[in-house]
Order: sequence, then structure tokens, then C-alpha cells
Amino acid sequence: MNTSAGSKSYRIAVDCMGGDKGPAEVVFAAAMALEDIGPEDTLILIGQEEILTPLLQKAHIVDNPRIKIHHASEIIAMDDKPMQAIKSKKDASMIRALEMVKAGEADAMVSTGNTKVLVGAGTLKLRPMPGADRPALAAIMPNHRGHFILMDVGANPESTPEHLVHNAVLGSLYAQAALGMEKPRVGLLTVGTEEGKGGERINHTHAMLKKLGDQINYVGPVEGFDMFEGEIDVVITDGFTGNVLLKSLEGLFYMLQGLIKEKSGFNLLYALGFLLLMPVLSKLKHHLKPERNGGAPLLGLSALVMKAHGSGNRNAIRSAIRLGREALSHNMTSRMQDALIIAKEKLEESDLIVQ
Amino acid sequence: MNTSAGSKSYRIAVDCMGGDKGPAEVVFAAAMALEDIGPEDTLILIGQEEILTPLLQKAHIVDNPRIKIHHASEIIAMDDKPMQAIKSKKDASMIRALEMVKAGEADAMVSTGNTKVLVGAGTLKLRPMPGADRPALAAIMPNHRGHFILMDVGANPESTPEHLVHNAVLGSLYAQAALGMEKPRVGLLTVGTEEGKGGERINHTHAMLKKLGDQINYVGPVEGFDMFEGEIDVVITDGFTGNVLLKSLEGLFYMLQGLIKEKSGFNLLYALGFLLLMPVLSKLKHHLKPERNGGAPLLGLSALVMKAHGSGNRNAIRSAIRLGREALSHNMTSRMQDALIIAKEKLEESDLIVQ
Repeated sequence: MNTSAGSKSYRIAVDCMGGDKGPAEVVFAAAMALEDIGPEDTLILIGQEEILTPLLQKAHIVDNPRIKIHHASEIIAMDDKPMQAIKSKKDASMIRALEMVKAGEADAMVSTGNTKVLVGAGTLKLRPMPGADRPALAAIMPNHRGHFILMDVGANPESTPEHLVHNAVLGSLYAQAALGMEKPRVGLLTVGTEEGKGGERINHTHAMLKKLGDQINYVGPVEGFDMFEGEIDVVITDGFTGNVLLKSLEGLFYMLQGLIKEKSGFNLLYALGFLLLMPVLSKLKHHLKPERNGGAPLLGLSALVMKAHGSGNRNAIRSAIRLGREALSHNMTSRMQDALIIAKEKLEESDLIVQ
Repeated sequence: MNTSAGSKSYRIAVDCMGGDKGPAEVVFAAAMALEDIGPEDTLILIGQEEILTPLLQKAHIVDNPRIKIHHASEIIAMDDKPMQAIKSKKDASMIRALEMVKAGEADAMVSTGNTKVLVGAGTLKLRPMPGADRPALAAIMPNHRGHFILMDVGANPESTPEHLVHNAVLGSLYAQAALGMEKPRVGLLTVGTEEGKGGERINHTHAMLKKLGDQINYVGPVEGFDMFEGEIDVVITDGFTGNVLLKSLEGLFYMLQGLIKEKSGFNLLYALGFLLLMPVLSKLKHHLKPERNGGAPLLGLSALVMKAHGSGNRNAIRSAIRLGREALSHNMTSRMQDALIIAKEKLEESDLIVQ
């Protein structure tokens, strides 16, 4: 596998099929992403050629040397099950993209398709990196001062203390690569910050995280309301809680939007009020907009897989490509592999690993 | 124990000490609550007499025959540990309030103090009702159309499938008592609505809930973003996820408030905009205000214990007293006991209980 460490140009495979908004959205995202990535980088668009070619024409990138098409005849559907999809749809665009990364024909892949299949097929094709058993999805979320990383947001609903510790190490490096933080503050999400609260799994994880010493900047257990204040840069939780949290917050935003519309109705004075507040609202929207950071890497695999999340529109996909490129230029995957080995040694010395 | 079934007047013990905002807030809440409860009902205020008497004078309820003081010399602090507090602070107001309920001298108790001690001491003094192992906290939350019940929001972080099923039965009856719903729709919070997603615990719980047949109106697994749409009346989850969710949503509200203030700064046009939108904002605030439903019962105990949550201000405490009174007049605790027995029989027939 070619992780392209040290090289200056990267090839990113983009799975164009199977997203909620269709391949056009992905193709336009790729066209926009050309502005973000390096001048020598290539985007390999994977999907049904007869569908992609006219879309590339529309997006004026059909003759662009930095864009390539790679044909794949099948599509992973949103309700496909992982094992079944991997077996029966060997020529699906998502599977082909993973195989290109495996074969060293691409340095990373981006997909907007079925998360469950991406996690399953990604794990099977690319394997977890030594020291990590299971990959985790890391989302970038807004807080009062800027952004923080929440992980796992859904790859592994039954995370063990070991998985949570791996995620703390991986998340910390991702915060460096994606948010430019030097010493990201890592917190363990729980239901009370005194030691002993939150159950056996939290206590055990907390003890292990403390043993990592200065390998990560672990600040201790954090509660739900600490998350948005801006004092924690990486919030670690299991994939069940993280996924519920991510989707609930999304649901809450939609509710607020809907309620404001409903409670205001049509009224000229209200319209004027909204108009006057437009600069505030647009600053707020810009700060909160999930699209700005609409990509979540599947951390812990031996090569980089990005899931475009949120609305899955072109802005979200564009940002997934940009975040993937940033991670590549930080040589993130190889740093993570090194860091996990160090963490493992520290924990073995301290006798805290239970398998 | 006197659950006062069928009687028309109730005595509610109110723990006045140990809340974040101090006893004055509780005394003023009690004074306000006199408007909500029945004309024959009594509120028994428990705490240090020398502190409470002047506060009652201030609140103009010192001679009110519906208000009584019951002296207790000690206070449970916010950082007290359950077992230690129960042993060493026998004359704490919270413990005395629980003992009055146990002795049949009060029909329910309300506290704004340390949740962990309330759960521990409540379970020890009042015992779980037959069929329930552990109590759960049920919070009322806003959704697009009105309100729903989220439980458990923190009493039992390590809920088993059996606990979750008990909570579904209890929560359904609480929605009837507190929100006036006839056939509340019950959903099981998970990370994907297809069967088989969410892990073993969710699958097992789902199978048991289906076996309850028409005892509850179980609509199946629900995801984070379904929660606020208004299609689910009772959302069941473990006490870890529920607590994280409750506190995160609270944190998010504070963040939004803070961001709006910051991004607007001082500007006359913005001030005018806010002024014009005042009716919308106040309708929105009224809909979302946690104080309106600032009480969470500790369901599954053999008598009614209410925790005043959220800000713990007088409005929240007043609403906890009101919700407690409503539950009493619905004879909720005894209905719950009957319902749990029926549920247990159904599950035993279906062979789905694993202990």
C-alpha cells in the first residue's frame, strides 16, 4: 500500500454513486474541490461512465487533466447490508474506490454513500492499522469558540475501553491535521465529572487515558454541557452515544428553523426584523454550518477513507475532499500508526489492558 | 405506605435544602405552587427551621394552613456520595423527606438537590416497585409539535434491556399523566432504524418491546433526528445516552444564545431587528423553556419522587411540584405497579427475559 508519505502530489478516489443527492452533486463538488487541493493532485471519479461523462461536461471539467474517470458498473444502495453488498456488488463504485486505495492507485478515497457498508467494506479491504481493532468516524462540530472533534459518531456502536483509548489517540492527531491545533485538549464524555461516575467502562477508559501521560493532552471526563463551551478540542465517546448525539443536534437545528418560520408566519414587521438581523444570522449560519466541515474520516484504517456527511450536498462533499487532502499532506495515517504503537506500549507497561 | 389512591387531597414533602440556588428559591416556588395544587393539598417544607421561617415570612406564606415546616438539621451537598451521605447525614432534609413518604406522612416528595444521592437514597428508602430493578429519570422535552418524554436521563447509566423495557412501560404511563396523552407513541432510541442495527442490547430490547403487544403503543426504533419532529411521545434510552443528550442540548442552547449576543454586538439596527421579532422570540422561548416542565420523576420506585431539574430556579421547582401533583391525582404509581406485573407476565410467556 502506497501511503505517499513525503510525496507532494496526491490521488484521491471519489465514489460518485450511491449518495442521497445523486452523482451530479459529487461531480460538481469535485469541480469545486480543484481549487482546494494541490496543483499536481488528481481526483479519480468512480462510477458509471455513461452517467459521469455528461456531468463532467456540464461541470466544465471533462478535459481537465486533474480529473479522471474510472468506470464501475454497480451502485451500493442506502439500504444495502454490508456483507451482502460486498459479496454481490463487486463492481460497485464504493468497493472499487477502496480497492484502488488498497492497490496504491489512490492515496485516499471519499464517499457519500451508505455509512454502514463503507465501515464494513473499508475494514475488510483496508484492514485496521496495527493497534486499532475497529475504525471510528470523527466529525467536526461547532462550539462557542470555533470547532471541536466528536468521535466516534457511528462506526462502532459497542466501543470497548480499548477502542475509546485508540480513538483518543487518533482524534488528537486528527485535530492537529484538520483544525491546526498543536496540543488538542481531549475529554472523555460521561455523565458526571467526579471519578467513579459513568460506570465501569468509563472508569476503565479514564484510568487508561491517564496512563498515556503526555502522549495526548487528556483533560479528564467531560459532561454534555461542557462540549459546546470551547474548552475541549476532542470529545471521545462510543459510536452509539456519538451517533445519537450528532443526529439529535441536527434534528434540533431543523426544529428551531421550522419553529421560527412557523411562529413568525407572514408579517411585514417580522420580515423587516429578519432583514435587519441578516448580518448576524449569516455570521451565525457560517459558524454553525455543517457543510464547512462536512467530512468525517474513518480513523483507524491503514489508509484514509473519508465519509461526506450531513446533507451530502456539493459543499459537504467538497469539504470532505479538502479535509482528506489536508490529512494526506500531514501524513496523518502514518503518524497515527506510530502513535498507536507508543500508546500500546505505555498501556502494556501499566498493566491496564483487559482483553 | 399510603399512596393516597382515590383520596382527594395530597401532602407533598418539599426538600428545601441542597439546591444550587438555595432555600429561598424553593420557598418562593412553594408559594407559587399553591396556585397549581388542590385547595386541600399541603406542602411540607423540609429544612433548617431557622432559615425557612424568615423565608416563609418574606414569601407571605408563614400563616398559610396549606404550608407546614418540618425541621431537618443537615444538608446533602452537591458533591456528597450516596452511601456516605445516607450513613452520615441521617437528619438531612432530603433523607427526611424520603422517610416521610415511606412512613405515609407525605404522598410524594420533591427535591432540587444532588441527583445521585436522590437516586441512591430514594432506591434504598422507598425500594423499587415489584418488577422494576432500578428507577429512571423521565424528562419532558420540547419537540416540533409540543413535548415528548425522554428517559432515562441519568439515574441508571448501565441500563439492561430489561430496564429499558420497564422504562417503556413506565414512560408510557407518565406521558398519560403528565402530557394528557391517550396512547403515547413509544420509540427506542438507536443508531439506525433497520432491525439488527444498534447492537445486541438494542436488538434484545426491541424484541421484548414487540412482545408487549398493545400494552404500550410501541412504534419501533427511532434515530436522533426523529426525536424533535413530534412523531414520538416517549423516547427510551439508557441513562448514559439520555444524560449526555439532555446536557448537550442544554449546552447547545447556551452556545446559541451566547453566539447571537456576540455576533450582534451593540448596534441600533440589530436592536431594532430584535425588537420587531420580540413576539416570535417570546413564543419560541415559551415553547422551548425547560422551566415549564422542570421536573423529572424518578419512575420505578414504590412512591413518587420528583427531581426539579434544569436551572433549578423557582419556576422549575414550581413545575416539579405541579407535575408531582398531577401524577398523584392520576394514581400513577399504582397504575405503574399493575402495568409492570402485566408486562412481566407477557415477557415470561414469550421466553425473552434473560437475567
